[in-house]
Amino acid sequence: MAKHMEKHMEKNMIKVGIVGGTGYTGVELLRLLAQHPEVELTAITSRKEAGMPVAEMFPSLRGRVDLAFSTPDDAPLRQCDVVFFATPNGVAMGQTRALLDAGVKVIDLAADFRIQDIGVWSKWYGMEHACPDLVAEAVYGLPEINRAAVKGARLIANPGCYPTAVQLGFLPLLEAGLIDTNSLIADCKSGVSGAGRKAEVGALFAEAADNFKAYAVAGHRHQPEIRQGLTHMAGQDCNLTFVPHLTPLIRGIHATLYAKLTQDVDLQALFEKRYAGEYFVDVLPAGAHPETRSVRASNICRIAVHRPQGGDTVVILSVIDNLVKGAAGQAVQNMNVLFGLEESLGLTQIPVMP
Amino acid sequence: MAKHMEKHMEKNMIKVGIVGGTGYTGVELLRLLAQHPEVELTAITSRKEAGMPVAEMFPSLRGRVDLAFSTPDDAPLRQCDVVFFATPNGVAMGQTRALLDAGVKVIDLAADFRIQDIGVWSKWYGMEHACPDLVAEAVYGLPEINRAAVKGARLIANPGCYPTAVQLGFLPLLEAGLIDTNSLIADCKSGVSGAGRKAEVGALFAEAADNFKAYAVAGHRHQPEIRQGLTHMAGQDCNLTFVPHLTPLIRGIHATLYAKLTQDVDLQALFEKRYAGEYFVDVLPAGAHPETRSVRASNICRIAVHRPQGGDTVVILSVIDNLVKGAAGQAVQNMNVLFGLEESLGLTQIPVMP
Amino acid sequence: MAKHMEKHMEKNMIKVGIVGGTGYTGVELLRLLAQHPEVELTAITSRKEAGMPVAEMFPSLRGRVDLAFSTPDDAPLRQCDVVFFATPNGVAMGQTRALLDAGVKVIDLAADFRIQDIGVWSKWYGMEHACPDLVAEAVYGLPEINRAAVKGARLIANPGCYPTAVQLGFLPLLEAGLIDTNSLIADCKSGVSGAGRKAEVGALFAEAADNFKAYAVAGHRHQPEIRQGLTHMAGQDCNLTFVPHLTPLIRGIHATLYAKLTQDVDLQALFEKRYAGEYFVDVLPAGAHPETRSVRASNICRIAVHRPQGGDTVVILSVIDNLVKGAAGQAVQNMNVLFGLEESLGLTQIPVMP
Amino acid sequence: MAKHMEKHMEKNMIKVGIVGGTGYTGVELLRLLAQHPEVELTAITSRKEAGMPVAEMFPSLRGRVDLAFSTPDDAPLRQCDVVFFATPNGVAMGQTRALLDAGVKVIDLAADFRIQDIGVWSKWYGMEHACPDLVAEAVYGLPEINRAAVKGARLIANPGCYPTAVQLGFLPLLEAGLIDTNSLIADCKSGVSGAGRKAEVGALFAEAADNFKAYAVAGHRHQPEIRQGLTHMAGQDCNLTFVPHLTPLIRGIHATLYAKLTQDVDLQALFEKRYAGEYFVDVLPAGAHPETRSVRASNICRIAVHRPQGGDTVVILSVIDNLVKGAAGQAVQNMNVLFGLEESLGLTQIPVMP
Repeated sequence: MAKHMEKHMEKNMIKVGIVGGTGYTGVELLRLLAQHPEVELTAITSRKEAGMPVAEMFPSLRGRVDLAFSTPDDAPLRQCDVVFFATPNGVAMGQTRALLDAGVKVIDLAADFRIQDIGVWSKWYGMEHACPDLVAEAVYGLPEINRAAVKGARLIANPGCYPTAVQLGFLPLLEAGLIDTNSLIADCKSGVSGAGRKAEVGALFAEAADNFKAYAVAGHRHQPEIRQGLTHMAGQDCNLTFVPHLTPLIRGIHATLYAKLTQDVDLQALFEKRYAGEYFVDVLPAGAHPETRSVRASNICRIAVHRPQGGDTVVILSVIDNLVKGAAGQAVQNMNVLFGLEESLGLTQIPVMP
Repeated sequence: MAKHMEKHMEKNMIKVGIVGGTGYTGVELLRLLAQHPEVELTAITSRKEAGMPVAEMFPSLRGRVDLAFSTPDDAPLRQCDVVFFATPNGVAMGQTRALLDAGVKVIDLAADFRIQDIGVWSKWYGMEHACPDLVAEAVYGLPEINRAAVKGARLIANPGCYPTAVQLGFLPLLEAGLIDTNSLIADCKSGVSGAGRKAEVGALFAEAADNFKAYAVAGHRHQPEIRQGLTHMAGQDCNLTFVPHLTPLIRGIHATLYAKLTQDVDLQALFEKRYAGEYFVDVLPAGAHPETRSVRASNICRIAVHRPQGGDTVVILSVIDNLVKGAAGQAVQNMNVLFGLEESLGLTQIPVMP
Repeated sequence: MAKHMEKHMEKNMIKVGIVGGTGYTGVELLRLLAQHPEVELTAITSRKEAGMPVAEMFPSLRGRVDLAFSTPDDAPLRQCDVVFFATPNGVAMGQTRALLDAGVKVIDLAADFRIQDIGVWSKWYGMEHACPDLVAEAVYGLPEINRAAVKGARLIANPGCYPTAVQLGFLPLLEAGLIDTNSLIADCKSGVSGAGRKAEVGALFAEAADNFKAYAVAGHRHQPEIRQGLTHMAGQDCNLTFVPHLTPLIRGIHATLYAKLTQDVDLQALFEKRYAGEYFVDVLPAGAHPETRSVRASNICRIAVHRPQGGDTVVILSVIDNLVKGAAGQAVQNMNVLFGLEESLGLTQIPVMP
Repeated sequence: MAKHMEKHMEKNMIKVGIVGGTGYTGVELLRLLAQHPEVELTAITSRKEAGMPVAEMFPSLRGRVDLAFSTPDDAPLRQCDVVFFATPNGVAMGQTRALLDAGVKVIDLAADFRIQDIGVWSKWYGMEHACPDLVAEAVYGLPEINRAAVKGARLIANPGCYPTAVQLGFLPLLEAGLIDTNSLIADCKSGVSGAGRKAEVGALFAEAADNFKAYAVAGHRHQPEIRQGLTHMAGQDCNLTFVPHLTPLIRGIHATLYAKLTQDVDLQALFEKRYAGEYFVDVLPAGAHPETRSVRASNICRIAVHRPQGGDTVVILSVIDNLVKGAAGQAVQNMNVLFGLEESLGLTQIPVMP
């Protein structure tokens, strides 16, 4: 196999570090960043796998990523322009301040900086927060809502996968004040990669294949994150019933959203107008049903809006790839905004179908 | 391969005919009936495959079903005690009267006799009804609601798959008058066998695998059937938003149901009490989430009831195997009731897991 | 849910114990034994899950298995008539002697007693053997070859999944001395449940779904077991290249076997004659291709034999359900033989299709 | 959704037409060509779907492909620089001469020009060949073998999917004359997209999921194509047993190849040396097992070579994505060679994992 032609190094590339690159969001970051024309992959850490070439763990990257995992201590993270945390919850908050102090931008793909109410965060994530002041500073990185804030940020809280699909689905209606905020329902279905690359019985093929189930109906960590976002959009408290389900997909989230309309409105026009300028949000024609595979391996969110039998219940269908727009892709999108690049740079892959 | 020991024929077996045995509900009927201790498979028809041994089309039945397909004209259907129609919609209504007149009981697994309002039926199924008087006579075969009526019937309308899962889920609440009947939501997910064994692009493996989508959000034929059932239970008109989804399962339906509670009540006790005497409905402990595989290849419906964060939204999770409790198994259950047999006879297979 | 009718206890049921019931072979034993008309489930052990009702871990067994897991010390194993070991390799050999001494029959579903050459066993399984004398006594439980020996045995070594499919495929040819024993090839494909219910990254849904790979090409533990069996059939040393693959099935093994014919022969007749009296081996018509799903959840092995373009290479296709004929079902078949019952008792489930 | 930035049109783009764009190889060509920096998609035909925007049939292409299907008569195919045929067998041979006469290069993804022996072709494809002289002229487009000939060709016969995986696996051994050409075995496993996007029962999700089977063991059309290629490499007649299997993957082919070594040799060094300069063939380290997902959605073939237990049987494992290196990607690779572009241009997508 001939080596991939090196990117030209004379120009000023963005030096990127990744902390925790052995999970699915880590390898997806690598896939996207290795193809990004303005990025130089500088370091990737894994305490456990230090010394192992990344492409040995992930053969899909052979010939394309030459880095080996290094320990967090040895990795030149402070020489990076930006560091992505693709770590379990609670890791980024311990290392972020030092990086920020060294002038490094931080994008956390975990939940450490997503929820502004520290008490709520602690309750759902089961730990004390190490740096509430940085939470206050962090910008919630959903560019379709927060683009301007992202641009000037040092620290980005990259949204969760469910929260991305749900918030983009409700956004036009809540901004326009057209639905009852007291009875929102998000019935969400996720592929199994959303559970991460941890060895757990429930995520085994023989458990998850040919099987469908709801989980965490009593309460899921993404519920307060979504509720915070919806409340922000609506300008008033939103009440959300959120039911996540596990479905035998590798990648993909399908959110089916229900709300009561409080006014009559041309829903199709509303959605199309709201997202007309957004590269990564595609409003389907009236009557359509987005499929998860229509966004597979791409950073796109596709949305359709329905009003069954002309009643007062609006049904929104919103699909993303949980590892791309729901994680690594959105993180790269945020990086592009942060560094003043074209927002779609390195993210124009066409979805893989079938 | 040694032949399976023949059932003893000296006793008075129920002579069974199947019209249209080449689809998934047909082969599932064969699987169940070939193991039923009181049944003698007498005829199975398929105009297209007449002459072909059933076990040649379905090798899973080799050594267990000796019948060959015959044409409807040649098949000794009038000598049967009961005939199952596993045909496309519109077939059974053309042949039922003659069978009834010959003293044969009829169980229709299609939709011909499910909806009492002939106008509604014609609108959704796109044809004139051939025998409205028989619709009026037909009994809707959900034994958990209609057992007594089934017992004395000549003609059973076997419920649809979605309608079975949804009705059993809402039943205790509607009977007890505990929820707002104006804003019921049924977010349902079905495996691909629900689409039948017809060659259609949308049901191809390369289309349906690793993919999730909603369909027919504007309107689905099962909506009026469910609504009729819910209205009957509630004693008042019910308004239902029904959104079906296709998920990469072979078998299985998961219904996630949402309603507004109008009174405080011990939901767990309510459900357990309602289904205490039902062999085929299993109410899971509080906090549980039923999986579709926990009922795979069995006639059981498992249900859990939740009240997230103690709010006024009740969430019911209801799973069935669409080919068994959602079709062939329920049809055999109805047959057992009709002929005065133990209701679970021939239907005690333990679900196949994993 | 109404309780399943209890089996009548007045007759002399076989008291059965299971050691290690939390894996897939364990739960499959439970599925089969709970439906077996002559079995009384007496004890099931799991040190880790002691106290937990079996049906809480496996909801598919709700209402059908009332046992809870107990510790090996507390379980009344010595009061059983037969004990099945569904444990990791190396466990059964430590507990078998005491059970045999107490007059209990033992059927080991792991590999402890499968290989007669203790040195070979130790090399492949990486441990010393605790009781070589019991290996010498143990009977290899492939009833289609060893029925008579099984009948009189105290200790059965239940064959591995791959070995079952491969040996039944080669058997007629080797017994008849019709193929070159120097160049046998077994290209085998297994579903993921074959890897067990252990939490391992490689068996995760997101790793194993939509993926196909060979593994252990340099050497797999089942190779010496198969080779021993083939050599025994042939009466001379057999040389086998064995390549296992992982395929995205839950259940199922497909063995594709290649050999050089040394004589001209009517292959179809040979196979049909050899298996004419075998309840669980089904020789398909000439030209057929068995599908794994045609034996799903059943104890059947289906075989087809081909001679492409009339050349001297014979191709045998052999399919089983790895958890049934490849593990739990075959163990129950052995139990039936041991106790003088009809060999198919409790094992007549029709395969689940689709 | 903001429109994708148009490629700059001032430079001299290659004008491309596609005949028959509604199948999986068609949509895959579109995915690759829409991202190719030197290509201008000019026409895509489908008699049946004429007038329908391509992105309406394939929503994954929304915002990226603006073309609509046109009839073959209306499409400006003769103004193209190159036309790809992604049609059923027998279509390209009827239209190729006119295109060649108009100075258009033709790349046929079907089988019309793959087999030089017209009699063999007619036997396997069941029709008379329309233009044997063009078969004689056509170049078999496996660039790793035929690069020089491809460069000067007018007409390329793009190899089949199985033939690509098998030929690249055997190539180093046959070129070097190291194996017995009389007993080659190719045990191949394909994903279901290989069956095309035709509505056929056997390719339904409920038939192909959780199922594994061999097919066409008596004879498959790719056997003579592979044999022709192997014979050409070896310089002597090769005898091949080819057994294809269907496995529940969307994309992917895994070829497991068996041969007898006639000489001792450093297999790893042989393979590495042969493919050192090939961008799209990756020889894995000794002892490795390539996974189909490690090449998913990419044009790479990954190969590992084994010699189990040091015997004289060599086992080669070769994986490709059947729709990319096995069809559309290889066609684009051939186009790049034909037009003097860098061979990997537009084909550097990193495989999608997981």
